[in-house]
Amino acid sequence: MSSTTGQVIKCKAAVAWEAGKPLVIEEVEVAPPQANEVRLKILFTSLCHTDVYFWEAKGQTPMFPRIFGHEAGGIVESVGEGVTELKPGDHVLPVFTGECGDCRHCKSTESNMCDLLRINTDRGVMLNDGKTRFSKNGQPIYHFVGTSTFSEYTVVHSGCVAKINPAAPLDKVCVLSCGICTGLGATLNVAKPTKGSSVAIFGLGAVGLAAAEGARIAGAARIIGVDLNSNRFEGAKKFGVNEFVNPKDHNKPVQEVIADMTDGGVDRSVECTGSVQAMISAFECVHDGWGVAVLVGVPNKDDAFKTHPVNFLNERTLKGTFYGNYKPRSDLPGVVEQYMNKELEIEKFITHTVPFSEINKAFEYMLKGESIRCIIRMEE
Amino acid sequence: MSSTTGQVIKCKAAVAWEAGKPLVIEEVEVAPPQANEVRLKILFTSLCHTDVYFWEAKGQTPMFPRIFGHEAGGIVESVGEGVTELKPGDHVLPVFTGECGDCRHCKSTESNMCDLLRINTDRGVMLNDGKTRFSKNGQPIYHFVGTSTFSEYTVVHSGCVAKINPAAPLDKVCVLSCGICTGLGATLNVAKPTKGSSVAIFGLGAVGLAAAEGARIAGAARIIGVDLNSNRFEGAKKFGVNEFVNPKDHNKPVQEVIADMTDGGVDRSVECTGSVQAMISAFECVHDGWGVAVLVGVPNKDDAFKTHPVNFLNERTLKGTFYGNYKPRSDLPGVVEQYMNKELEIEKFITHTVPFSEINKAFEYMLKGESIRCIIRMEE
Repeated sequence: MSSTTGQVIKCKAAVAWEAGKPLVIEEVEVAPPQANEVRLKILFTSLCHTDVYFWEAKGQTPMFPRIFGHEAGGIVESVGEGVTELKPGDHVLPVFTGECGDCRHCKSTESNMCDLLRINTDRGVMLNDGKTRFSKNGQPIYHFVGTSTFSEYTVVHSGCVAKINPAAPLDKVCVLSCGICTGLGATLNVAKPTKGSSVAIFGLGAVGLAAAEGARIAGAARIIGVDLNSNRFEGAKKFGVNEFVNPKDHNKPVQEVIADMTDGGVDRSVECTGSVQAMISAFECVHDGWGVAVLVGVPNKDDAFKTHPVNFLNERTLKGTFYGNYKPRSDLPGVVEQYMNKELEIEKFITHTVPFSEINKAFEYMLKGESIRCIIRMEE
Repeated sequence: MSSTTGQVIKCKAAVAWEAGKPLVIEEVEVAPPQANEVRLKILFTSLCHTDVYFWEAKGQTPMFPRIFGHEAGGIVESVGEGVTELKPGDHVLPVFTGECGDCRHCKSTESNMCDLLRINTDRGVMLNDGKTRFSKNGQPIYHFVGTSTFSEYTVVHSGCVAKINPAAPLDKVCVLSCGICTGLGATLNVAKPTKGSSVAIFGLGAVGLAAAEGARIAGAARIIGVDLNSNRFEGAKKFGVNEFVNPKDHNKPVQEVIADMTDGGVDRSVECTGSVQAMISAFECVHDGWGVAVLVGVPNKDDAFKTHPVNFLNERTLKGTFYGNYKPRSDLPGVVEQYMNKELEIEKFITHTVPFSEINKAFEYMLKGESIRCIIRMEE
């Protein structure tokens, strides 16, 4: 048993005191885990666009001070009452959405949208007692999506923790906690392209590149990248994207451009931008008879998806996915193994690394569009 | 070889001379089949709403004189050059859409939308020479969807003919040529409900009842019928429908009514009305995480399907189907066997029978909403 078990731990955390203001590295207090919770020592974390979105707090309910961060790798420090599947020393990935194992969603083979532990961006406290485990000089600091990995130690519900192969390098596999699995699973688990097929990927950010990586792994012959920013095309080649379309270069809808390129449409498409217009194009560019389009990007509150119903009647399918349909505890260990077996290439997603003290640089890289993933090393 | 092989046959046919006017039984001439065509002796035909729709010719291009009819059972009289899979005497169902066997759609396991023989309601002639095989006193009479079964003899492309078990009663299985398979396949082949699941059926006409029959065969526990006409509810019980919703009885959207009845939504829904509002409701009433909605009904030209994209992102699936995804030649013999094995109950769809001379009565029954299917006996 660790000497810190049951004790409050003092450690460094990057606190967001106000919306849009640089994070401040503070010494905070982290309470011990309660029932069904675990306390993790975070070794590596990375920055995802969702952190930035809620840090900017444009439109969402602001909740500050808060500790962001939800892509990470760490080691279990101690476990609370009732936790039997995890023990101190286990290598883990905390995940922003969970798997209680008991609800109808967890019992369904088709869904990963756990009723108890589904992402909740408005909740800054733990489920067990409605309170935070972080404080500074007695002032509570809010959690973010149940993970708050921009801290040397964090407390997480045990249903949000995937136990992985201890041989896996945490500085790499930490990126599987969110964006990479979201895109990868959208293709591998939901679109399911067959070997030799054609796949269009809308949006070549981290999630779209991961969707392309899924198409590459599935053996798709044609992977068509669609993006309004042609600067992304060269880099996307590493992810298997072998044809490119910039909708700005054409004076007809991109779905028509793609239909012309592919004798009537692609076999599969994956939308990773959140633009409702891209969603409509991604649906309308799949082939009649067998085409499947998968939506991944998060739209605006008032968006409407709109199409002629005959586009469905011509035997097209439209589905959405959440976290690539991966069940965090059941499926993530297998994704780590795909990496260990060299099937999945993670390194190419990691473009930058910074020490924890320079975490605000990771925000700058992302805001400038320079990074795919920037790893933040907690131990300097 | 039949004595009529290679000869013009004179026989009776019900000719639609003008839009919306009663059909007239005429003696017509039926030319011999050309390459890849077969001539069929029709024994039983039934009336489908699509015949009535094109007979009324409101909005579509009118094409008269024409011989309607596309649900039928018959026997091969003679075959044209190159036809090897059919021979005189074979018991068959002609189908309004075909299976050439060679196109990308036919080669795909996911599609039945044959490039060559897909339904074409604007074509009144044969593919081979762009001419009709019917005439009266030298005046050509147009075909309808390649079948024209309101005639004692008709000529059909061999790719539109399913050869079936000769022991199957043609006066029953003739209804499998269109509406019944469309609904049945929408559930069994596309929605695929699991045993014990819940299924909502929108529209309790012939296609919707066949979709319910599919849910019954699949072992669904709850089959919820939705219709604006409550008079249809009692009769629908025979098809396994065990709960009923009339949207007029509620002052909130029917998708909310269904969500309340089913703890968040049904597992599957099948839309069989063609109303775009019903399509939207059918999609929005399926459960998040695993719900699948299938569109069957044919919408108006200017309709738009509209929903918030988050309804997809919550892991719902929307698909459309055409003829229940059945490939006519490959799959119909198996559906006939389901009937022969008493798995599928066809008799309950057949509410009326008339002799050929009284074919206009079948139109009356349908227009008054009195019939599900009316069988027309060609031999009196």
